[in-house]
Amino acid sequence: MTEPTDKSISLTEALSAWKTALAPERVCVDHGALEKISRTTLIRSTHPVCILYPRSTAEVQAVVKIANEFNIPLYPISRGKNWGYGDACAPEDGMAIVDLSQMDRIVEVNEELAYAVVEPGVSQKQLYDFLQQKNLKLWMDCTGAGREASLVGNTLDRGFGHTRYGDHFATTCGMEIVLPDSTVVRTGFCHYKKAHAARLYRYGVGPALDGLFCQANLGIVTQIGLWLMPAPEAFCCFAIAVDQYEGLSLLVDRLRPLRMSGILNSALHIANDLRVLSSRFHYPWEETGGMTPLPESIRRKMRKAAGIGAWTTAGAFTGSRAHVRASCHALKKALRGIGRLRFIDDRLLNLGKRVVTFLNWFGVGATLRGQLESLEPVYQLLKGIPNDEALHGAQWRLRRPPPHPPRDPLDYGCGLLWISPVIPMTGSHALAVSRLVEPIFAEYRFEPLITFTMINERSMIGILNVAFDRTDTEECERAVACYHKLMKTLMDEGYPPYRVSLEGMADIYQGSESYWEVAQRIKRALDPNEILAPGRYIPRFNK
Amino acid sequence: MTEPTDKSISLTEALSAWKTALAPERVCVDHGALEKISRTTLIRSTHPVCILYPRSTAEVQAVVKIANEFNIPLYPISRGKNWGYGDACAPEDGMAIVDLSQMDRIVEVNEELAYAVVEPGVSQKQLYDFLQQKNLKLWMDCTGAGREASLVGNTLDRGFGHTRYGDHFATTCGMEIVLPDSTVVRTGFCHYKKAHAARLYRYGVGPALDGLFCQANLGIVTQIGLWLMPAPEAFCCFAIAVDQYEGLSLLVDRLRPLRMSGILNSALHIANDLRVLSSRFHYPWEETGGMTPLPESIRRKMRKAAGIGAWTTAGAFTGSRAHVRASCHALKKALRGIGRLRFIDDRLLNLGKRVVTFLNWFGVGATLRGQLESLEPVYQLLKGIPNDEALHGAQWRLRRPPPHPPRDPLDYGCGLLWISPVIPMTGSHALAVSRLVEPIFAEYRFEPLITFTMINERSMIGILNVAFDRTDTEECERAVACYHKLMKTLMDEGYPPYRVSLEGMADIYQGSESYWEVAQRIKRALDPNEILAPGRYIPRFNK
Repeated sequence: MTEPTDKSISLTEALSAWKTALAPERVCVDHGALEKISRTTLIRSTHPVCILYPRSTAEVQAVVKIANEFNIPLYPISRGKNWGYGDACAPEDGMAIVDLSQMDRIVEVNEELAYAVVEPGVSQKQLYDFLQQKNLKLWMDCTGAGREASLVGNTLDRGFGHTRYGDHFATTCGMEIVLPDSTVVRTGFCHYKKAHAARLYRYGVGPALDGLFCQANLGIVTQIGLWLMPAPEAFCCFAIAVDQYEGLSLLVDRLRPLRMSGILNSALHIANDLRVLSSRFHYPWEETGGMTPLPESIRRKMRKAAGIGAWTTAGAFTGSRAHVRASCHALKKALRGIGRLRFIDDRLLNLGKRVVTFLNWFGVGATLRGQLESLEPVYQLLKGIPNDEALHGAQWRLRRPPPHPPRDPLDYGCGLLWISPVIPMTGSHALAVSRLVEPIFAEYRFEPLITFTMINERSMIGILNVAFDRTDTEECERAVACYHKLMKTLMDEGYPPYRVSLEGMADIYQGSESYWEVAQRIKRALDPNEILAPGRYIPRFNK
Repeated sequence: MTEPTDKSISLTEALSAWKTALAPERVCVDHGALEKISRTTLIRSTHPVCILYPRSTAEVQAVVKIANEFNIPLYPISRGKNWGYGDACAPEDGMAIVDLSQMDRIVEVNEELAYAVVEPGVSQKQLYDFLQQKNLKLWMDCTGAGREASLVGNTLDRGFGHTRYGDHFATTCGMEIVLPDSTVVRTGFCHYKKAHAARLYRYGVGPALDGLFCQANLGIVTQIGLWLMPAPEAFCCFAIAVDQYEGLSLLVDRLRPLRMSGILNSALHIANDLRVLSSRFHYPWEETGGMTPLPESIRRKMRKAAGIGAWTTAGAFTGSRAHVRASCHALKKALRGIGRLRFIDDRLLNLGKRVVTFLNWFGVGATLRGQLESLEPVYQLLKGIPNDEALHGAQWRLRRPPPHPPRDPLDYGCGLLWISPVIPMTGSHALAVSRLVEPIFAEYRFEPLITFTMINERSMIGILNVAFDRTDTEECERAVACYHKLMKTLMDEGYPPYRVSLEGMADIYQGSESYWEVAQRIKRALDPNEILAPGRYIPRFNK
């Protein structure tokens, strides 16, 4: 053992104190369990000293107190499904994982004012099922991270979904937080016991602290208010295919006025052909003879067979029937002369399924079936119905055949590194970023799997996937090199990311003026012992 | 002189240093000027030791450095038009006012991506005129605080206007801040020099600090990005009159689904009869024989003469023609059976004016003219055109006849105390708050001038005006007693305010758990000498 003795002693004591504070079975040091929670789709993984499973805010407080006493740093996770950004891994070895998955109460759902209050252990599926079971006329927004992903976890990393409430942080209202010194603080109006608008008005009075607890390490969020959408009167999904690569530019510029005027009011995703293919197919190892990256001729062939364009967009309008009709009309008008636009509603989708059944009876209809199969999960996400299909993309480059439907990417050796630059919502920037990154992907023999999401009325988040096979050591090396080259290039060119993985944490400190120093000063004030998630976003004190 | 000598010495030295850092004429100790900047519509005023007029971020840094060196606390104001909440007054005597009105650059306006970058000295009028002069197809949101009010100042107090971008803080993007130790920090992506999305994506990467600089004293904001709205294709204003007092309940409950579904997407204001009357008329001193509060019979008579209901709402739909049409239809449907709904567009308003001219020729049309006169300023605000008409309400209880159009309330001895509870967007809460406060107003012989603003999709901000005449000492005493009774009652009943004046600062600390202590810890980290606006929102260290 290379551990210094005093550290071992304090860990032993801490474990003993945690067992008393929680329960022995909720302090896990089992080697297998620690190995399992260390798995990642990134390259490097870190190893914790234990996993703690508190079940209440008071228990989280106790956990934090003991951590301070024995100087064991904590790394809180909600449900640990931080795909592409580090999963459940702490920034460094030797931390105690605080796994909040057993804090899974849906504390409150209010139908009239359309909100829920949830703990970090609540999964997308759990809230969705609850709304269904209670027959509440409320829709949630969900991400493609799968049914088991935590709502709180995604929100605290400022993740996003697909609907009008796609910007998750913007639709939170009131947090309960255990600070690194074990104080509990409630934001918004939640610190006034009787405030009726505690889950209805975000800012409260005085400085608003919520922003400090996203993408940071200043507290353990133990409860959060989430706004939900009243089920709309009408819903109409649309899909746009643009055949030419350069068509991206015009597509973005035509959609921007609709997004900016509020007609298009959801987090619209635009995917390139490869990203769409990766969500339905597996890398054609046989046809390419094992060669990477995907040759242009095969890419074209696959695109044609799948009946998709160079860029595909799927989104939805919700509202009154008349508003949805007006929005469909405005979209048609805006896209005149570019791309292929299709509207899909429940009726058409069901009809499509019946047609496929009919065609299958004649032995045809495979392409249509494929299209419907790939559309349906997206269609569900647009309605706030979580599903696991989007995880498919992580399997793209696996050497062995992936499972279908996709399962936990960690069980299959999926490698996935996400780079997520924020770019102005203009065609020229979208095309520029696309052109900037493609040669880098090619240089390292990966395919540029790309989506651009219109996250607000003025900007887009690009999600660039470096998908690789973790069982191939040489490919892992190329993947991480590709990642860093992409990060550096994008930072240098003025496209910093909206979110980073452990792998990219150091990149975001560069080229910045004073911001991180100020964040550090706040960190020192709230966490002088640097006990909470040291190295997560806010730089280490001594580094 | 009661000042201790060492304090006088350090002030003298500080003044001398400030004169060197700025320019002698931008360090003002003129008695008249200090008296003028101390004026307030509240009861108590505070007196500064000097006024400093920096013209650049570097000069603000110099001002802050000197303040720390000589221990003279600073109170920054943008343009000092914080009506009803304390004007330009610092929380305590003896501070140096940092008047930022000479930092009035419109740094950038981008038409394609619809935003402006402004300094704190930029007034509503200045930005509006700029957009007009450059013929930019952009609308701004403005408040009723008048043409001379600062955009930044209002935003930092989380003020609100009337349109889709009515929540001002929500539409900021990127701040430049001079911290109390003179460090400059830039939020969002603004701390990366080349970030293209610096004014387009609010959160940046890592913890979001912007919330710390609103309703606080943690930094001097020297620049802010503000999103603007592309001029809409269509605009339709509507007015709703509800005759019965209890009708408020149904009105709110019928409007809520429209607000929540996004059909009604602006900060809609609902005013009671007295608030509408106060914006057009003067208290009927003659008719009441000097009696207060306004007798019910005269209230009814005035309401009838003005042709208004117990509650009046004016708002607008913007968007494509088809969307505006659909929204008007949805509103009509929602309000079926309650109230009187009128739609007003440019054509109708112009026609109305011509009709008035025509009727005037016959000596009739006075009521219609009055209605048009009161509608026009609201109509302008709904289009983002700033005007001074809303200041009229502050003159309601003046003993001498007020000027028309209204001018600076401080020139006319207007007394105005605002209490602004946040309440759930339900009819029962709206009515409950209204019923809760009315007897208190009556007890102190004031009229309950009330508006409820649908600030977001789930909550409303009530603005309760205690309007009084500052030249009447006895009335001043009643006004402040009324204010505190209202604040206490509302806090006790679970309706804390969205914003407070100096008068109410202590009220918001009560009944809160740990929040303010955490805010203090951050204050200590950023401002150990408590040099910046001590007592503004975040409690004093030693109190």
